[in-house]
Formats: sequence, C-alpha cells, structure tokens
Amino acid sequence: MSKITYDFELDRIFDTIHNLNAENIILQFPEGLKTRAITLADKITDNVNVNIIIDADYCYGACDLADNKINDSIDLIIHFAHTPLQINYNKPVLFVEAHTTTEISNVLKEAITKIEGNDIGIVTTTQHIHKLSKMIKIAEDMGKSVHLKEGIGTRPGQVLGCNFTSIKDISVDGIIYVGSGDFHALGIKLFTDKPVFVADPYLGTVHSIDDFCDKILKVRFARIVKAQEAKSFGIIISSKTGQLRYQLAKKLKKMIENEGFKAYILNMNHVSPDLLLPYNLDAFVSTACPRIAIDDSIMYKKPLLTPQELEIVLKKRSWEDYEMDEIVIHENQKN
Amino acid sequence: MSKITYDFELDRIFDTIHNLNAENIILQFPEGLKTRAITLADKITDNVNVNIIIDADYCYGACDLADNKINDSIDLIIHFAHTPLQINYNKPVLFVEAHTTTEISNVLKEAITKIEGNDIGIVTTTQHIHKLSKMIKIAEDMGKSVHLKEGIGTRPGQVLGCNFTSIKDISVDGIIYVGSGDFHALGIKLFTDKPVFVADPYLGTVHSIDDFCDKILKVRFARIVKAQEAKSFGIIISSKTGQLRYQLAKKLKKMIENEGFKAYILNMNHVSPDLLLPYNLDAFVSTACPRIAIDDSIMYKKPLLTPQELEIVLKKRSWEDYEMDEIVIHENQKN
Repeated sequence: MSKITYDFELDRIFDTIHNLNAENIILQFPEGLKTRAITLADKITDNVNVNIIIDADYCYGACDLADNKINDSIDLIIHFAHTPLQINYNKPVLFVEAHTTTEISNVLKEAITKIEGNDIGIVTTTQHIHKLSKMIKIAEDMGKSVHLKEGIGTRPGQVLGCNFTSIKDISVDGIIYVGSGDFHALGIKLFTDKPVFVADPYLGTVHSIDDFCDKILKVRFARIVKAQEAKSFGIIISSKTGQLRYQLAKKLKKMIENEGFKAYILNMNHVSPDLLLPYNLDAFVSTACPRIAIDDSIMYKKPLLTPQELEIVLKKRSWEDYEMDEIVIHENQKN
Repeated sequence: MSKITYDFELDRIFDTIHNLNAENIILQFPEGLKTRAITLADKITDNVNVNIIIDADYCYGACDLADNKINDSIDLIIHFAHTPLQINYNKPVLFVEAHTTTEISNVLKEAITKIEGNDIGIVTTTQHIHKLSKMIKIAEDMGKSVHLKEGIGTRPGQVLGCNFTSIKDISVDGIIYVGSGDFHALGIKLFTDKPVFVADPYLGTVHSIDDFCDKILKVRFARIVKAQEAKSFGIIISSKTGQLRYQLAKKLKKMIENEGFKAYILNMNHVSPDLLLPYNLDAFVSTACPRIAIDDSIMYKKPLLTPQELEIVLKKRSWEDYEMDEIVIHENQKN
C-alpha cells in the first residue's frame, strides 16, 4: 500500500488565516492523519506568520472540536478530514476535508458486479465524497441506477459512524460502501438489511459485510445476556460537545431505577477502560460516541452497552429490533 | 493498612446545594478517592433531590477543575481533596478538603528525632492540614521551634506538587513532610537543600528523601544528556485551566528555534505517552503539570523534560542550578 496523498487545501488555509487575521491557530487531525501534522505545520509557517498549536488529543469526528480549548488565545481552528455537524462551535472553524487521490474505480466496479439487481446505493466518507459523481457514472455505465438521499446533517451518499440517516428507507437491491473499515458498512447492513459490500480503495479489496455483522451480533448478544445479571449500571456521558447526551443519560438512569436497579452518571472526555476501573458497577452504558461500545468491546471487562442494547436488557425492546446507536440531533444543536 | 476515613463534610454539601438551589451537580475526585464516589453519590441523593454526575476523568489537582465541562447544565461542582488555586473558575465550586482522621503523632515524633538542630519546618497536604497546630504543638513539646511561611497561593505549611513557595527561604535545620509519596519531599529537598524526612501516616513509616532524590537526579541527568542530541522538540501544553502555559510554550519555542532546532507546540488535556507517538520528534518539553516529566519519566521513550531542564539542554542554565518546575502564577490568574 503506497502512501496515501491527501489534499490539505493550503491556499484555502492561507486565505482563511489572512481573512481572519488569525495569529494563534490550532490544527486538529483524526488519528490516521496525525503523522502528517508536523509537515503541514511547517508548510503553513513557511508561508504565513502564525503560531500553530497541534491538538494532540484523540479526535474521531467533528463532534470533538477543539473549540473549547485554550479559549482566549485561539483565533482559528483548522479541523481536518471531517465535515461540520449541525452544532454550535465557539470559534471560527475551517473544515478541510482532506480528499484523497486514491483510485476508487477498480474496487467500485468489482463491488458493483456483486450486487444482484439494478438499483444500488453508494455511500462513502469525507475522504472520497468529492468522487461521488464519478462513482455514480461508473455505476450507470455498468447499467445500474444509483439511489442517493440526503441525511439529517449529512450529504447525499455520506454516512458517519453515528449517522446513517442518508441510507435509511432507500429502495435498492444492495449498497456499496467505498472506504476502509467495517463499522460504517455494519451500520448500513443493520439499518437496511440489504446486501452490503465494502469497497476498500486503500487495500484494493472488496468484501461482503455479512461475516463481520454476524460476528458483531454474537458479541453484542453475549454482552446483553451478561448485562441482564447487572444490579448496578454506570451511564457514561462524554463532555465532547457533539457527543454529549446528558438528557438521554438522565432518561436511561430513570429507566434503570424504575426496574429497581442502581444507576450513576459518569462523565469523561475520552472514554477509555481505565477510567471505569474505580467504579464497582456491574455494567456500563455509553451515551458518548456510538462506536465505542461496538469497536472497543473487547477492551472492557464489564459489559459496555449502547442505549438501545440497554433497552433490550431491560426488556423495553426486543432483540429482533436490534438497532445501531446514532447521534443525529445534538444537545448543542444549531438552530 | 486499615481503610482511611475521610471527612466529606456532608452537611456543608447539603447546605451549599440548598443555598444555590442546585439541580445538576458534578462531583470531582482525585484518583485515590474515586472508589468512594458511588457511596458518596448515594449519600447525597438519599438526602437531597439532585442529579449527580461523577466526573470520571483523571484529576490531580484544582488546576483541573470540571468547570468547563457540560457547561450549561451544571449548577455546582463539588471538588474533593484539593484547595482552590488563584484562578478564575467558570462555575460555583465547593471545595471539600477531605481531611483524614489518620493519626500523625507517631510518625511525626519519629521524624522530629531525626533532625539535628532546633529549628524545623513542617509541611503537609490538604488531607492533614487541619492538624497543623497539633503538629506544631508536638514539635514544640519536643523542644523544637517550628518555622512556617505562607506561600504564593498556598497556606502556611502547605506545599503542592507544583508550588513550593511556602518552604523557600525558611531558615531551618531540617524539614518534615507529613504525607504519602516522595514527590513533594523531593521538591522541598531540591529547593532548600536541607535534610528532608517523609513522615507517612498511612504506612506509619519515616524516611529521608536523600536516596530518592539521588535516584531522580541521575534519571534527569540521563534525560538531559539524551535530549542534547535532539534536533526537534515537541512542547506540550495542557488545556486544563490551571496547567495552561501557552505563553511559556511560545517562549520556549523561540528559545529552541534560536539555537537552530525545530519546535512544535502540542496541546493535550491529559498528557500521556500514547498521544505523543504520531509525532516524529526527538524530545519533548512539558509545560503542563510539573510532576509529569518526573513521575512518569519511565513511560516515555523519548526524553520528556521540564522547562528548566530544557534550559540546561540549551546551555541557558547550568546543571548546578537544577530546579523543580512550578506553576505559581497562572495564565488564568484571579485578579
């Protein structure tokens, strides 16, 4: 796998700095791009006279914007590789989508051949979304009809790990996810129950999500069964602006207490297993990033559930209605 | 070692909640007290009708107050086991010092016998500071004269891991630190060069800090020598209000660049080795909590220095003038 090239839109960065007359700038990268931070900081300071702070905290989305850090000193946040959420940010933010030049044609074509039927959905992530019309053309040239829908806070063809609204209720024979990792495709599968294929342009591979989905559902079922023995629950909230669901946490607390169990709300910024160790509770529910309970499951000794999984534990929802967790409307929602 | 009893001042907690008519309250504990959080939350909600959030993030001092989290929802922060710093907090804060009932007489008496001379200093931490007059009386009954001084932002006889001003320039024959851990005593030793003894009331032991001090200085010397080969530096700032030293970071950056080396400012909330891995830099300087470089040294692959150690690396300070780092005046200082 050759080194991926990203478009960091330097000219737009320079223009924004000039327009805002920004002196102190914080750069924020997701984990996969943090290794590029030093080089990019050099490129900026070679051209404009600014103070750069590289935000080294973990960052998994625009839900976690560095707009509440070092407040008084910061004139501009440059946030890479995510698109804005519909939340209020406290500071000027420049979103740089970090599009890649990585070729998507071959994997997409291969994935298209795997779908039986003419109606397909195509979804992708911020890094490839600029190629969406190219993707549609490839599919149409192969005789397919592509169905896309705008989501709540997402663009046509865009899914986030916490927002699958763009693919719900689209009438297709199968859906192709162009991107890396299995999480997005898992969500698409669970929300649509259609054939879903991952076309990974970085690895150059195509695979069905079915095996991964089966594996994850087995793990989730085991966690739910284990949590049914719990008498005390920790409900995790995150203080990251776009992940905070305090109102939901209070609702879940009441739901647990109504069943005669104990519940406590625990706040953390970056959710991690170590932070839970001091609390002698039987199970945990995360209202923070919906990915955590699924992706990091193995790191947690006690069951860590999504809100929907808690409902199954408390028999408010049936296992047949298993659903991925989403954060579509935010507590700090932009009006 | 029997379980330590702390005074959580429940009546004062109830009164404050009533007076502020607080509905949503965040409880914040240092690591050693987090295991008490659930029981204490129960005691509060058994008596008053409030929503409790337990802050599960790491917390090592009043430098790191949960006043900038979940902002709109929180009416009161109850912060345990630390005394306030001279910084502006954004929310009403109740500081509960969490005094212990642990007996200090025996270890103190033993430590006093180890000091040659009549003039002694006694310092301690928040958990024992209510016993300071008792400590003085014990010493005076043994024929000693006790010398105490108020520090900048600290009380007579109080030292913090980042503030040793209360023991600088006191004229004594030796100093006793009543508390656990070696870090505070190390700082006292380095700032005073007097005999310093740790009287640990939890372990019931007394020891001189000399061996620990020698060991630490050897490690620090090795780190400094290693950092003298560095061509690129990461300067860590923390976004925790009481730890933020952005102005110092910019000064150090200039100092490094003036020597022809590269320097980058990295922001993080909780400083940890994992967060540094993406950055291919030769050495790091922490302007965050002064304890990190010393206490966590072994966890960092690259040299992690204090600002004073960087000065030694860059030959702006001699090894003979080695000094502990302190944060006495804060960027967000209260007027």
